[in-house]
Amino acid sequence: MGNQLALTHYLATFIEGLVRAGVEDVVISPGSRSTPIAILMEEHPTIKTWMNIDERSAAFFALGIAKASRKPVALLCTSGTAAANYFPAIVEATHSRVPLIVLTADRPHELRDVGAPQAINQIELYGKYSKWFVEMALPESTTNILHYAYSVATRAVSTSLSSPAGVVHLNFPLREPLLPNLEELQWNLIGIEKAVYSHAKQSLPEELVPLIQEIQDKKKGIIICGPHDQEAFPDAVVSLAEVLGYPVIADPLSQVRSGTHSKECIIDCYDTILKSTKMFQAMKPEVIIRFGAMPVSKLLMQFISQSDVSHQFIIDQDEGWRDPTFTGTHFVHMNEIDFCHQVSKMVEAVPQARESEYLNKWKVANEVVKPILRSKLTDFHFEGDVVRHLVNLLDEDMSLFIGNSMPIRDIDTFFFAQDRRIRLFANRGANGIDGIISTALGISTRVKRVILLVGDLTFYHDLNGLLASKMHSLPITVVLVNNNGGGIFSFLPQAKEEKNFEQLFGTPVDLDYEKVVSMYDGQFSRVSSWGEFEEAVSISFNSKQLSVIEVPTTDRSQNVLLHRQLWDQAVQQLDGLQEI
Amino acid sequence: MGNQLALTHYLATFIEGLVRAGVEDVVISPGSRSTPIAILMEEHPTIKTWMNIDERSAAFFALGIAKASRKPVALLCTSGTAAANYFPAIVEATHSRVPLIVLTADRPHELRDVGAPQAINQIELYGKYSKWFVEMALPESTTNILHYAYSVATRAVSTSLSSPAGVVHLNFPLREPLLPNLEELQWNLIGIEKAVYSHAKQSLPEELVPLIQEIQDKKKGIIICGPHDQEAFPDAVVSLAEVLGYPVIADPLSQVRSGTHSKECIIDCYDTILKSTKMFQAMKPEVIIRFGAMPVSKLLMQFISQSDVSHQFIIDQDEGWRDPTFTGTHFVHMNEIDFCHQVSKMVEAVPQARESEYLNKWKVANEVVKPILRSKLTDFHFEGDVVRHLVNLLDEDMSLFIGNSMPIRDIDTFFFAQDRRIRLFANRGANGIDGIISTALGISTRVKRVILLVGDLTFYHDLNGLLASKMHSLPITVVLVNNNGGGIFSFLPQAKEEKNFEQLFGTPVDLDYEKVVSMYDGQFSRVSSWGEFEEAVSISFNSKQLSVIEVPTTDRSQNVLLHRQLWDQAVQQLDGLQEI
Repeated sequence: MGNQLALTHYLATFIEGLVRAGVEDVVISPGSRSTPIAILMEEHPTIKTWMNIDERSAAFFALGIAKASRKPVALLCTSGTAAANYFPAIVEATHSRVPLIVLTADRPHELRDVGAPQAINQIELYGKYSKWFVEMALPESTTNILHYAYSVATRAVSTSLSSPAGVVHLNFPLREPLLPNLEELQWNLIGIEKAVYSHAKQSLPEELVPLIQEIQDKKKGIIICGPHDQEAFPDAVVSLAEVLGYPVIADPLSQVRSGTHSKECIIDCYDTILKSTKMFQAMKPEVIIRFGAMPVSKLLMQFISQSDVSHQFIIDQDEGWRDPTFTGTHFVHMNEIDFCHQVSKMVEAVPQARESEYLNKWKVANEVVKPILRSKLTDFHFEGDVVRHLVNLLDEDMSLFIGNSMPIRDIDTFFFAQDRRIRLFANRGANGIDGIISTALGISTRVKRVILLVGDLTFYHDLNGLLASKMHSLPITVVLVNNNGGGIFSFLPQAKEEKNFEQLFGTPVDLDYEKVVSMYDGQFSRVSSWGEFEEAVSISFNSKQLSVIEVPTTDRSQNVLLHRQLWDQAVQQLDGLQEI
Repeated sequence: MGNQLALTHYLATFIEGLVRAGVEDVVISPGSRSTPIAILMEEHPTIKTWMNIDERSAAFFALGIAKASRKPVALLCTSGTAAANYFPAIVEATHSRVPLIVLTADRPHELRDVGAPQAINQIELYGKYSKWFVEMALPESTTNILHYAYSVATRAVSTSLSSPAGVVHLNFPLREPLLPNLEELQWNLIGIEKAVYSHAKQSLPEELVPLIQEIQDKKKGIIICGPHDQEAFPDAVVSLAEVLGYPVIADPLSQVRSGTHSKECIIDCYDTILKSTKMFQAMKPEVIIRFGAMPVSKLLMQFISQSDVSHQFIIDQDEGWRDPTFTGTHFVHMNEIDFCHQVSKMVEAVPQARESEYLNKWKVANEVVKPILRSKLTDFHFEGDVVRHLVNLLDEDMSLFIGNSMPIRDIDTFFFAQDRRIRLFANRGANGIDGIISTALGISTRVKRVILLVGDLTFYHDLNGLLASKMHSLPITVVLVNNNGGGIFSFLPQAKEEKNFEQLFGTPVDLDYEKVVSMYDGQFSRVSSWGEFEEAVSISFNSKQLSVIEVPTTDRSQNVLLHRQLWDQAVQQLDGLQEI
């Protein structure tokens, strides 16, 4: 009975620490060893618990909540392989810098490595993928140990958020009996008010000042915005671009393509523009200022690589080293928004004409290309059309989650700058095709409406994730581009060799997803025209459940041809331009 | 072009090394970075490739093939989170000592940790869960490097098999272009014939000889066989038991309960017998000889723990330390079969009467209990009946794969010793509810017919695994015990507290699995009587596809009551026995 009281006080104090440090959501998977933590989480007056049975999906679901809320989310599972199922989402969270706090229940020391059932070695289970690992003390209710539990909780939250944000893993050895004593439950036995962690404000490093003055005179400068998610960033970077007279090459995940900020300098067709060898050569900049992760466009990466610039500033608050082209000249570890504001002020202080022939060339090229990328095609097999039609239907403040492989590339090409605020999400830390449905559903817990644009293999990979929509009544619109296999491989060199192609890369699975969607109480529509598509998407927005709209674009080769046809047309126009 | 040739020769030599060292099967998941390895695997004249899109299922599928064939199986995936999805099966393979060779494609060094897409840190990705990790050299075709590639391949196979068997991880950095040159393909450029690895024969340690002589005189000895899978083991251990006059307490996964060997000394109802406090006290042994992993029965573990024996020999060829009760007195790291043979010979050399009152008491108790456990119940909600009816239907040489949680416990209670050879499988390394369908399907590639007995949450967890049945035309009979949630929790203390119980432990998911089974081209029967059950199971044996037979036993509490009713009846009988 003493043990049960110690268990209760220790874990309640720990949970209260998490909550006071800012944790609002916990995703729980069922298990026996984790019983007391699960029950106490459920009992806590403010914490929101989400049951998610498949731990792989559970972890991606937590990732989604954390992405949308920009707050750390806790995960709880039992001992054994349950914890190993978190690994894919943990890798993604690390690379996309999303804060997660992983709580694993474990057998106590005397049951480890002695052949006891369901006991695996959970010490440092995720290796370099957890920023901080703590093997927790056994439950005790001395004041000192309660302070310890509270302190580890608040420190875990702070560490998960500290730069770069990522994953903290706390492993709890627990002995039987595993039931807390709810009658003696108190949340704040040790009477601490709140854990506060503060991060320093950042100002421009002094050595950059002369450099910034130098680049003001260089007219051939570009700003590149890769995947990034800070609310005030688009305004800040657009202001900087305007005072410098630089174009903003904006990846769709930079959040800069949509919103109410000025679009004057935004170039959104660069991937197509750079397909013209003439443009690729003619537009080489002298200066690059780069924010965020590497953009989706492989051509843009090659462009950076071959640009031979005198200055390439890579701004990264999280002290990363995002420079796969090895052409970075200045790594600036500073908050991106602060950088934009401070540099803008410096530049504005020196009044001068901001007209730039170079910027105008980019704008002209962008305007030449866009109508071509928008031109109508009659063939329903064209996957680019899914994006072109879908984007028009989106309402202000909706969120678009984009699957990897083809969807993100089609968004890159066909999602143009526009004024509605649409938040774009994707799992671009490791670009996996795993856990996408769960991540999108996690996001849906915090935003107005999520539309998930996804290919069929990615959809298949996380079918289990759909259960969360049913169990927690989370509505979502899934646009399923079904080309019955791995569409991206048709764009790669192996597509030329027919032998083994379908077996190893095309991998058609021939699944009628209507059946599984129905199992999860979802609405399913398989559309055969863009009119039907638009209707189904619009209807889904008013639905309170899962809606899956399948666009069957089964001819993968034809899809490649149609993409190339549009691009070729654009390149032809660009190559004929007199102005460049 | 030179690069392409080097790539081709290097990888072909590596693959040939795997094959010559004994690898017959490779499970491949689609990806771009892994393209050249995948194509060459596919081209190899003898290797059997299995496409499996979800890497988590793929790894469990490979685990299944390796379990059934007792040979190492290779896995191949691309870079990124794909590799992280292997982790649950890798943990299981490590703890259940199954050889797997994990091949991960990776970005080359210059694209690592610089923000390049889909590049994660794959060095030592699985931490302590790979026995050997190799960061492979970049492809070259010098004689020395080809010898290196061949050598690593053969060594990987040998290491995966060496004691204890487990997981080897080889990480391949690969540069573009990623296509091999099939015109220049040669498998054995370096002309090595075969890699041979041999393990020493083992003989009884000398210091055991006087001990064995000593225990011959002790009449209260038992042999405990936990989960174990060596073909000749049942015969060997039964012979040992007979010369010693000891009962064999045989876990179902010891493979000792079924087959043509003598069943004279086999006790299969020990879990029920030990529920009688009288028996628990009366039957305490002086000597225990233990083989295999810890048995499923928790009561048996407590019995060992409280036995206070003078000698407890724990025989483990793989040099483990399986002693969660801390009562082991002699850890014998020696092949189990050799141990049985050599000790049997020593004991036989000293002729004496082998009658044992103690053994007879075990037999009497076993005979008292068995008819009760076999007695008919009229309630269809009793999950024990699934086992009782299923076992009767099994033909010689069929394989039974048993899910964790309740199925393995019901098998422990209701699967009695019998003469048909039925091989029993389960994932008891870490006892997870993940990957069970995939493991069973992997096994089905090598054996006559697999019957998978599984609960609904376990079935849900690996629904994706069903795709392998459809893609590779693998027939399997799935007996799905659907109590709509986590049945085992109703046996645990938290079942007494109704508050939060269904939310955290019962976790009903209300899924109509008929739909998803139909998506995977499976036959689905929901039965409502044992007659229907028997018919559906029999029909499935002749089917060439997936057959799922659902037994809806939705009343979890009633199921607990019926179990307890039978056990109470047995205990009452045992307590009344005069002989003990």
